[in-house]
Amino acid sequence: MKFTKMHGAGNDYVYVNCFEEQIDDPVSLSQQISDRHFGVGSDGLILILPSDCADLRMRMFNADGSEAEMCGNGIRCVAKYAYDHGLMQKTDIRIETGHGVLDLHLYVGSAGRVERVRVAMGRPGLTRATLPMSGPANDQALNVPLDLAGHSLELTCVSMGNPHAVIYVDEVEQFPVAEIGPLIEHHPWFPRRTNVEFVQIISPAEVIQRTWERGAGETLACGTGAAAVTVAGVVTGRTEGRITNHLRGGDLYMEWLDGGEVLMTGPAVEVFSGIYAPG
Amino acid sequence: MKFTKMHGAGNDYVYVNCFEEQIDDPVSLSQQISDRHFGVGSDGLILILPSDCADLRMRMFNADGSEAEMCGNGIRCVAKYAYDHGLMQKTDIRIETGHGVLDLHLYVGSAGRVERVRVAMGRPGLTRATLPMSGPANDQALNVPLDLAGHSLELTCVSMGNPHAVIYVDEVEQFPVAEIGPLIEHHPWFPRRTNVEFVQIISPAEVIQRTWERGAGETLACGTGAAAVTVAGVVTGRTEGRITNHLRGGDLYMEWLDGGEVLMTGPAVEVFSGIYAPG
Repeated sequence: MKFTKMHGAGNDYVYVNCFEEQIDDPVSLSQQISDRHFGVGSDGLILILPSDCADLRMRMFNADGSEAEMCGNGIRCVAKYAYDHGLMQKTDIRIETGHGVLDLHLYVGSAGRVERVRVAMGRPGLTRATLPMSGPANDQALNVPLDLAGHSLELTCVSMGNPHAVIYVDEVEQFPVAEIGPLIEHHPWFPRRTNVEFVQIISPAEVIQRTWERGAGETLACGTGAAAVTVAGVVTGRTEGRITNHLRGGDLYMEWLDGGEVLMTGPAVEVFSGIYAPG
Repeated sequence: MKFTKMHGAGNDYVYVNCFEEQIDDPVSLSQQISDRHFGVGSDGLILILPSDCADLRMRMFNADGSEAEMCGNGIRCVAKYAYDHGLMQKTDIRIETGHGVLDLHLYVGSAGRVERVRVAMGRPGLTRATLPMSGPANDQALNVPLDLAGHSLELTCVSMGNPHAVIYVDEVEQFPVAEIGPLIEHHPWFPRRTNVEFVQIISPAEVIQRTWERGAGETLACGTGAAAVTVAGVVTGRTEGRITNHLRGGDLYMEWLDGGEVLMTGPAVEVFSGIYAPG
């Protein structure tokens, strides 16, 4: 089976072009191929498929075989693959995901290959009901104080289809993310748990983010988390509607203007292509 | 650059056929290509090269770019690669390593591809001087009592070119390897630190091993560690000269008879081949 390994800000998947390959059991394939010692090694498997309602369709499977609706870092690589490998020639495309059809714009470099991709991530949800989070359903959760393990924190909570708690800290590199992250993820306020973003402000237009992902622990990058951080910065007056967000795996350029969709622009990199044939 | 990804009992490397490819800077290539999110992802890089004194030569680089002398799981894959990819047609071969020339025997399956490889790992060293370990230079360290963090342990120490402390425990899956491993690795008895093997005896011919590798932490498999366990079992009268050793990454079949070389037979698996061309 032919595949291509790509990453967006360090979030890496095995991509299979299902215009050419047929995958009968993506759940077990994802479990096997994602193993970092016995397989190709990745955060999961993404299938690039024909769509009835958009230019392409993506399906993504986590390393444990569970299917996920969407991944902001993954969809950029789908778009790059489609352009670089000739599935389409245009630079504005629409991709069908489990979270609806998303609009993307491709930035093509001098070598004729896609270097960056902008994704319209949808509109944020700010009420506690949409997160979900305990408390009055229509209230927003902005700067909610929470004392935890000797830290006086403030949580601003944003849904990007999935729940995020954004917490501003002074020195994010020194912050005990692995200790505090799970305490918030599993806090009784969040009946479906929550992702947690720890953010240090460099300037009104620049932040550093560390991400604690629900069910995954600290990760190199999270696109919906970066979108939540952008929204939280605007609604609490801390940062502007255009920010550069430095994540562990790379930089994302974020925009949220006039209460519309959150736009994310970030890198997409092809690392290698291969033939998977264990034996 | 063409490469092949292979593993032996879960110990996985990127293999490059240097009869066809030229590698100018293997140190930085190994650092880049071994990265599990931004590169191919591996425990390191192994170059397959012509030899002046054997059938082939292997050079291996760890993920941090440091060059290592030999790897029992890696050399099996070198032998499989050479046979399966037509570098040679014979099933008894000699491979030059940084630890001398080793003899290997290939077991070819019905599909005409190598399935298992036997490696002559050399003779063990049992004196404290060869390990090195503090105490009388010519004494052996057999069943040496050591109380550590509430555990009453006994250490039997074997050199296979590198130092190993073998410790028998009742329930190895429940044993706190991550807690006790580093305490022994850095114990003042071992001036150059030591690898540590925790072993549960199933029968005189079968053991379960967990490995704490010097500088690496717990790993899926360690060939020299399995050899040390074989020798320790014989010299302390616990196990026989032929044992099946269940490691986390797979099984190794070990022999140490009449005080000769330790023989290790184990799997070698090709997972995928690819073209590395980041961009």
